[in-house]
Amino acid sequence: MNSPERIRIKDIARMASVSVGTVDRVIHGRTGVSESSRQRVEEILQRLDYQPNMYASALASNKRYTFISLLPQHEEGEYWTAIENGISNALAAYSDFNISVHPIYYDPYNYHSFAQASQEVLTEKPDGVLFAPTIPRYTRPFTRALSERSTPYIYIDSNIQDQPALSFFGQHSHQSGRFAARMLMLLAAGEEEVVIFRKINEGVVGSNQQERREVGFREYMQQYHPACKIRELDLHAKQLNDDAQMLDAFFAQYPQVANGITFNSKAYIIGEYLQQRSRAFNLIGYDLLARNVACLSQGGVTFLIAQQPQLQGFNGIKALCDHLILKKEVSPVNFMPIDLLTKENIDFYSNR
Amino acid sequence: MNSPERIRIKDIARMASVSVGTVDRVIHGRTGVSESSRQRVEEILQRLDYQPNMYASALASNKRYTFISLLPQHEEGEYWTAIENGISNALAAYSDFNISVHPIYYDPYNYHSFAQASQEVLTEKPDGVLFAPTIPRYTRPFTRALSERSTPYIYIDSNIQDQPALSFFGQHSHQSGRFAARMLMLLAAGEEEVVIFRKINEGVVGSNQQERREVGFREYMQQYHPACKIRELDLHAKQLNDDAQMLDAFFAQYPQVANGITFNSKAYIIGEYLQQRSRAFNLIGYDLLARNVACLSQGGVTFLIAQQPQLQGFNGIKALCDHLILKKEVSPVNFMPIDLLTKENIDFYSNR
Repeated sequence: MNSPERIRIKDIARMASVSVGTVDRVIHGRTGVSESSRQRVEEILQRLDYQPNMYASALASNKRYTFISLLPQHEEGEYWTAIENGISNALAAYSDFNISVHPIYYDPYNYHSFAQASQEVLTEKPDGVLFAPTIPRYTRPFTRALSERSTPYIYIDSNIQDQPALSFFGQHSHQSGRFAARMLMLLAAGEEEVVIFRKINEGVVGSNQQERREVGFREYMQQYHPACKIRELDLHAKQLNDDAQMLDAFFAQYPQVANGITFNSKAYIIGEYLQQRSRAFNLIGYDLLARNVACLSQGGVTFLIAQQPQLQGFNGIKALCDHLILKKEVSPVNFMPIDLLTKENIDFYSNR
Repeated sequence: MNSPERIRIKDIARMASVSVGTVDRVIHGRTGVSESSRQRVEEILQRLDYQPNMYASALASNKRYTFISLLPQHEEGEYWTAIENGISNALAAYSDFNISVHPIYYDPYNYHSFAQASQEVLTEKPDGVLFAPTIPRYTRPFTRALSERSTPYIYIDSNIQDQPALSFFGQHSHQSGRFAARMLMLLAAGEEEVVIFRKINEGVVGSNQQERREVGFREYMQQYHPACKIRELDLHAKQLNDDAQMLDAFFAQYPQVANGITFNSKAYIIGEYLQQRSRAFNLIGYDLLARNVACLSQGGVTFLIAQQPQLQGFNGIKALCDHLILKKEVSPVNFMPIDLLTKENIDFYSNR
């Protein structure tokens, strides 16, 4: 056998100090087990990642599984890189199962690009798909086609509740926006104006997660700070050279605005600008991109909110393996943590 | 064999797409391996928790290991329960190794109790000790005796740098206090008075971690809010019935104080009081005790700071096993995360 050999039921029984019959009952979901024994056995099963039969039979089989990841186009080091690192780790962890992942990309600021790329995915007839959905209207033809073929798919980043995937991994965007609003208004300390910075192309924000964070943010503001003015600055998603000029123009017009937020992962664009201009400003951003973290320690970014993207990529592929190969139940909705990082606590964030 | 059988070097070689010789070189720390191959192999070794030889030989041996945990006395559901849950989980996970942990307790508000209990530990001649140290002066005789016998010991909760343990697990208390100060002053929004609530018995706070958090807190306040007055209320650690009365007296004297913090895990004492009195107050506390979390959702506690106590207990026992049984290197200082929980993000905290 080409892998760690399987744990036997009697080993688990010994570890949990219960009978073999009890372990068998727990594994097969039967009654007649005390709650404490069940918990103990389940804890051990989970810790050992125990798979009755399926693991060995999967190894014995020669079947290959081809998955496709459909993600926004991005540069190395951007947010999606972390998702892809998680996918790569899952590929290594599950390499016994002959799985492969073929990446396809779309332009997140162009709905037709998604339509085109998703068509390409269908042409390849994958065994499973992991993808970051675009807006529901443009996602639907794709999920409908996948459902008709019974091809399981995983949502990464944002969920579409009325087109449920096998499993979703991402932040609860609405709560994330409310949390961000609360933190921003603590920083704002009574100021009556804040600004939302966006990256936009022809009216498209490029991410459901970002749009919904803003909805949650505005809901919180409406509820607790209805008098606070929310300014907006839409930077061009595709013309990076304009950023400084547009920020200059914004602050020339609204010099009093000293608190702001960006719901995308490119807080560093604003943070680095603020540092260059030595402008006193409280900025909240998302995600631990190296340039964001540098801004956090240098003061251009005040708080970052993180969400474990690597785990999203890893668990997305794991869910496909669990479902297709190990025939395990997969949890349909998996909200990621909403973690607040400041320069005081960021050094210890990953020690868990 | 009574456990998952070992992974072979050739399996690892296949998973990392390198030769068997390369894996062997990495395992034995020899040169002649490219950086990328080394990284890939090490990642897989770590993921599989691979132990060359030691695991099998430990299983073959009949040696029993007796550990002692020396922790503060506590009621079920208090902070130390989570540490002990982590210890229990480690016992289950490492049950193949014939380890046992015998708990001994001391009164954290009485240094002589620590001296007495630590003498008891020594009498039992354990193979390893995991303990929450009291102040350095009263810890020294114990660590000196353990060192003379070459008995490895683990610090849980607080570190004593000049008496280094095999391994320490706990928050960076100083940074934790600075982080807490920053958060409290955001809540305080310009108020010029805050209060520190303590639990104290005859001048003893009962925990190095708490004392040092307060040092970090005061350092931050001195640096950024030197004008802010820091009031103190010392509740009796051993006379719980006095709490409400003392809080009443405090707020009668200082009705203007509306922001406070407690560095111990019993924020609920103040939180529940605030709820009963319907008093508007921002309170920061530590740790996810059920009663603290209830206060967080009901409003008696504003923020909680968490630190993964279960992981501390688990990793403490794991470190003893790694060192004594598997002869693995153990990292000497392990700072836990400093996590901020609010009612907006607490539901998602454990999803990682």
